[in-house]
Amino acid sequence: MPIATINILEGRSDEKKEKLIELVTEAIHQSIDAPYQGIRVILNEMPKQHFGIAGKSAKKLGK
Amino acid sequence: MPIATINILEGRSDEKKEKLIELVTEAIHQSIDAPYQGIRVILNEMPKQHFGIAGKSAKKLGK
Amino acid sequence: MPIATINILEGRSDEKKEKLIELVTEAIHQSIDAPYQGIRVILNEMPKQHFGIAGKSAKKLGK
Amino acid sequence: MPIATINILEGRSDEKKEKLIELVTEAIHQSIDAPYQGIRVILNEMPKQHFGIAGKSAKKLGK
Amino acid sequence: MPIATINILEGRSDEKKEKLIELVTEAIHQSIDAPYQGIRVILNEMPKQHFGIAGKSAKKLGK
Amino acid sequence: MPIATINILEGRSDEKKEKLIELVTEAIHQSIDAPYQGIRVILNEMPKQHFGIAGKSAKKLGK
Repeated sequence: MPIATINILEGRSDEKKEKLIELVTEAIHQSIDAPYQGIRVILNEMPKQHFGIAGKSAKKLGK
Repeated sequence: MPIATINILEGRSDEKKEKLIELVTEAIHQSIDAPYQGIRVILNEMPKQHFGIAGKSAKKLGK
Repeated sequence: MPIATINILEGRSDEKKEKLIELVTEAIHQSIDAPYQGIRVILNEMPKQHFGIAGKSAKKLGK
Repeated sequence: MPIATINILEGRSDEKKEKLIELVTEAIHQSIDAPYQGIRVILNEMPKQHFGIAGKSAKKLGK
Repeated sequence: MPIATINILEGRSDEKKEKLIELVTEAIHQSIDAPYQGIRVILNEMPKQHFGIAGKSAKKLGK
Repeated sequence: MPIATINILEGRSDEKKEKLIELVTEAIHQSIDAPYQGIRVILNEMPKQHFGIAGKSAKKLGK
């Protein structure tokens, strides 16, 4: 029954995000023997001006 | 002083979300005797391609 | 498929926390027509020195 | 290596949000001696109808 | 620079939790081409009485 | 009405954590003009084996 929340910078394709859900679910299943049916994954996209690294936003850092 | 964060799939009306805030606040108040004034509720809407169930997004599952 | 996370100060009985899970689930079900089976509730207990209100911890404030 | 997530109501300028990232990072660095390089800050903007205070949304309360 | 938070029921060995961190990091790297160095994983263990499924705690459900 | 959640590695003194609450609250107040009274700060301590950097736990990395 694990629940994962993953914060990523916005801008990935729906295809890559679908792959992210698939592979993270598989990783949780394999590592701690959690049944697939109970695994939930929440993706949260951050605009670049909403993610700060060492005091500056990813936007300002040109990421 | 409880703080609840509720992840829901996007698509509910403002009226239903207002009801959600009201009823969850009431539920917290009743169950643990927390004063209304201190209760906070944060709603977070997830696009269907951002919520994964058993390795597939709600969008792909046709939810 | 809603997922609620509720931060509360530590110190409630298991009975009250069980009631909290039950009533919040019921509140989500009623307000947005989410099926019971899909609702998840995570409780997170905060020690009083880990929750700050207006710049001071609940411990320091004597809560 | 601290990671801070800050929920704020939507409507602040990019300049204020950049300042928020800068000052919170500085505050974490000063208080617990965490190196700047390892500090991450995530901002999450809430629409007024998604934040509940004492059972009503900030929108309904006219905030 | 993705940051994942994973809620799991308490009781797994340190070895399995280390494997969870390793495999989830690998899954994020593979699916969205995020560099290893920037990936963070936070594990959060829930006591069985703090996780509710369909209105009852995992403890009460005998999980 | 901002709500900040800060994940830190366990091991800091209560005095440093009180300072963290104080300075982060001040930083939020200064940067976005939020009134002190409405600011909440939640600290979440992570055991070293529960925080992963680039695929390994802080414990394994000897942090």
